[in-house]
Amino acid sequence: MRRVYLDHNATTPVHPEVLEAMMPFFQDQFGNASSIHWAGREVKKYLDDAREKVAALLNATPEEVIFTGCGTESDNMAVKGVAYALQDKGRHIITTEVEHHAVLHTCQFLEKAGFEVTYLPVDSDGLIDLEKLRLSIKNQTILITIMFANNETGTVFPVQEIGEMARGKGVIFHTDAIQAVGKLPIDLKQLPVDILSLSGHKLYAPKGIGAQYIRAGTKLTSLIHGGGQERNRRAGTENIPYIIGLGKASEIAQRDFQGRSEHLLALRERLHRGIINRIPHVKLNGHPTKRLPNTLNLSFLYIEGESLLLNLDLEDIAVSSGSACTSGSLEPSHVLLAMGIPHEIAQSAIRLSLGWSNTQEDVDYVVEVLPRIVQRLRDISPLYQKRVSRSK
Amino acid sequence: MRRVYLDHNATTPVHPEVLEAMMPFFQDQFGNASSIHWAGREVKKYLDDAREKVAALLNATPEEVIFTGCGTESDNMAVKGVAYALQDKGRHIITTEVEHHAVLHTCQFLEKAGFEVTYLPVDSDGLIDLEKLRLSIKNQTILITIMFANNETGTVFPVQEIGEMARGKGVIFHTDAIQAVGKLPIDLKQLPVDILSLSGHKLYAPKGIGAQYIRAGTKLTSLIHGGGQERNRRAGTENIPYIIGLGKASEIAQRDFQGRSEHLLALRERLHRGIINRIPHVKLNGHPTKRLPNTLNLSFLYIEGESLLLNLDLEDIAVSSGSACTSGSLEPSHVLLAMGIPHEIAQSAIRLSLGWSNTQEDVDYVVEVLPRIVQRLRDISPLYQKRVSRSK
Repeated sequence: MRRVYLDHNATTPVHPEVLEAMMPFFQDQFGNASSIHWAGREVKKYLDDAREKVAALLNATPEEVIFTGCGTESDNMAVKGVAYALQDKGRHIITTEVEHHAVLHTCQFLEKAGFEVTYLPVDSDGLIDLEKLRLSIKNQTILITIMFANNETGTVFPVQEIGEMARGKGVIFHTDAIQAVGKLPIDLKQLPVDILSLSGHKLYAPKGIGAQYIRAGTKLTSLIHGGGQERNRRAGTENIPYIIGLGKASEIAQRDFQGRSEHLLALRERLHRGIINRIPHVKLNGHPTKRLPNTLNLSFLYIEGESLLLNLDLEDIAVSSGSACTSGSLEPSHVLLAMGIPHEIAQSAIRLSLGWSNTQEDVDYVVEVLPRIVQRLRDISPLYQKRVSRSK
Repeated sequence: MRRVYLDHNATTPVHPEVLEAMMPFFQDQFGNASSIHWAGREVKKYLDDAREKVAALLNATPEEVIFTGCGTESDNMAVKGVAYALQDKGRHIITTEVEHHAVLHTCQFLEKAGFEVTYLPVDSDGLIDLEKLRLSIKNQTILITIMFANNETGTVFPVQEIGEMARGKGVIFHTDAIQAVGKLPIDLKQLPVDILSLSGHKLYAPKGIGAQYIRAGTKLTSLIHGGGQERNRRAGTENIPYIIGLGKASEIAQRDFQGRSEHLLALRERLHRGIINRIPHVKLNGHPTKRLPNTLNLSFLYIEGESLLLNLDLEDIAVSSGSACTSGSLEPSHVLLAMGIPHEIAQSAIRLSLGWSNTQEDVDYVVEVLPRIVQRLRDISPLYQKRVSRSK
C-alpha cells in the first residue's frame, strides 16, 4: 500500500547522504571534540567543517554560527539571552501572536519575570502591519522576535523591512527561521537580522540538533552554562554526528535549492488545484503568494480537521492539524484564530506540507482519496446538513 | 599499531547494540512523536519504552524520567529550575567547590541574578564534611546540588547522607550523577534524591542526549519553553533515535552491571599497580576506596600532566588532564586545587578512565609505554633535576 507523508513541517526523514556522513562518528571517530588527544582532534576538524557549511547556506561567517540541541532551544536562547543581557537597558519585547510556542511560551515566561511583551496582531493573510510594529517600538524595547515564515500557514514575513526598522531604532532583531531555512533563500550579508534560529529536523538532518546565527558583536546571555564549548555561548559536549549531519544537510539544501523549490512549488500547486477542482467549500489559509513553497493549509468547511486527519491516516496519508507540538489539544490553532478566522473554520483546517521526496504520484493519490473522505465526513456533519437543507 | 582509549570519563563510543537499536529511526520510522498519524504513533511507543528502560536502571517510575539534550542541560535545568521555582521561598543554594562546570557556572550565573551560593570545601580525598553541610543549611536554603561522583578523581559522595540531611530540612537535593550512572548501583526508591541528572555519552549512548529524574511532586521551572513535550517539562521535538539509544544503553548497563564493574575494577587495579611498581613519585588523587571503579587520577611528580598527555598521544594512548570541557586552559584542575593539592602536583596529574571494551592488553601496553615517557620528561624537568641533585 502506498504511504504518503505530507507533514514535512512537523519533521523530515534524514536524507540518505546526511545519514551516510554521520555514520563514522558513532563508533570509529567518537572522540570528545574538546579532548586534545587523537580521538578529539580527529573530530574537531569535522566540527569546523560543518560550521562552515551551515554558515555558507546562510551567507554568514563560521564564527557567527553555533550549534544547539534543537530549534526550540535556539529560540529560547535568543529570546531569554537578549532579555537577560539587555535587561538593564530595557525590559520590553515585541513579537507576534502567530509565533511558534517556542517563542510565545518563552515570552510568557519572561512576562512573569517582569518583562513587558507586545504581541502584534496579524491580518487575514497572517501578516503584521509594519506601521503597528513601528509604533510599538519604545525606548525600553530591547528585542523584536518575529518568525521568518509561519509553520502552520507558511506565510512569509517581511524580514528585510522588520530588520531595517529594528536596526534604525537600535533594537536587536531575532527571527525564528526554523521553517524557512532550506525553503527560502536567506542571505545574512543582506538581511538585517541579528539572531536567526534554525532546526536540523526540518531540513532533513536529525531531530535533536539546531543552530543559531549570532551576528558578530551581538550581546547574548547563555541559556546553558558549563564548559567552554561553542565559544562559551553554549555548554555541553558537542553532538558530533548530528552536527556533521546538519552540515551535510545545509550543503545539500544549498546545492539542490533551485531544483527543490521548483519541485515543491509544482507539486503544491498540483495538489491545491486538484483539491479545489474536486472539493467545494475549501478555503486557503495563509498568504496566497508570500508563502513557503511546500506548505498548503486548507479549511474544509463543515468538517473537523482532526477527523479528516484521522481518516486520511487510515489511508496511510500523514498530514497535520495545526502544529505537531500542540497536537492532541482540542483548541483550534492559535495562528488561525489570530488571523481572524472563525472558530469553526479554523477547526476545519489541515496542513499539507511537502518534502523533496514527494512525487506527483503521492499528490495524485491524495487528490484521489480526499474527496471521498471529505464527502463522507460532510454527510454526517450537522453543520453541512443544515447548510444543504437551507440551500434547497 | 595499537590504539588505547583511556578517556571514558570524557566520552564513550556508542555501544554496537545501541547503534543497532537507533538505526531504524533516522529514515524508516522518522515521525515526530507528537504527530497523531502513523508516522508519529509508530515512534511514540518506542519513546515510552526507552523511558521505562532508563527508569528501570535507576529504580524510578517512567513518569519521573524526562529526556533532555545533554547532561549539561540537565544540570542547568535542575539548578535554575529549582532556583526559579522556589525563589519566593528563599534564594540560597549549597554546592561544592569540586562540581562540574555545568553546575558551578550555573551557580555563578544565579549569583549574578541575586542568589546566594555556598561552595563547600573538600578534604584531601575530595570529600565534603557533612557537619559543614549541616551548618550551612539556612531557612532560605532551597537547593543542595552535590555530585554523585567526581568526573576527575572518581571520588564518590555520601549521597544517602546528604539526601537524608536535605530531606530533614525540607531542602531539594539535586545530584549530578553523570559519571556515576552505569558505574555505581543507583536505587532511587532508596536514595533520598529529588533530582538526578545523567548523560548518554558517558554511558555508551551518543553525545547529545541526557535525562533527568524528577521525583514526583518536585517543583521545577522549565529551562526550555515551547511545545508540550515531556509532560511540559522540556519543550522541543523528541530526538527519537538518541532516546532509543539511551534506553538501550540503560538496559545494557543494568544487564551487564556486575560483569562490567568487576572487569573495570580489575583492569584499574592492574593499571595502578603496574604504574606504581615501575614508576616512582606517583601520587593517587581522589579517595583510595570510595571511588568510581573505572577512574584513576595520578600525579606524576616533577612533570606536567599536559606534556605527559601529549607524549602518550604520540603513542596512540588517549588520556586526559582534568576535564575535557576545560582542556586547553593552562590552569590546573579546580577539583585538585580544592582538595588542597599544591599547584605543581595538581599540574602533574593525568586521568585514566577505563571502559568496558578496554582489555588487559590495553592496560599492559600503557604500563609498558608509560615509564619510558615519564623518565624522558623527568630527565628534562628542572624540578626533577633539582631534586636529584639535592638527594645526591
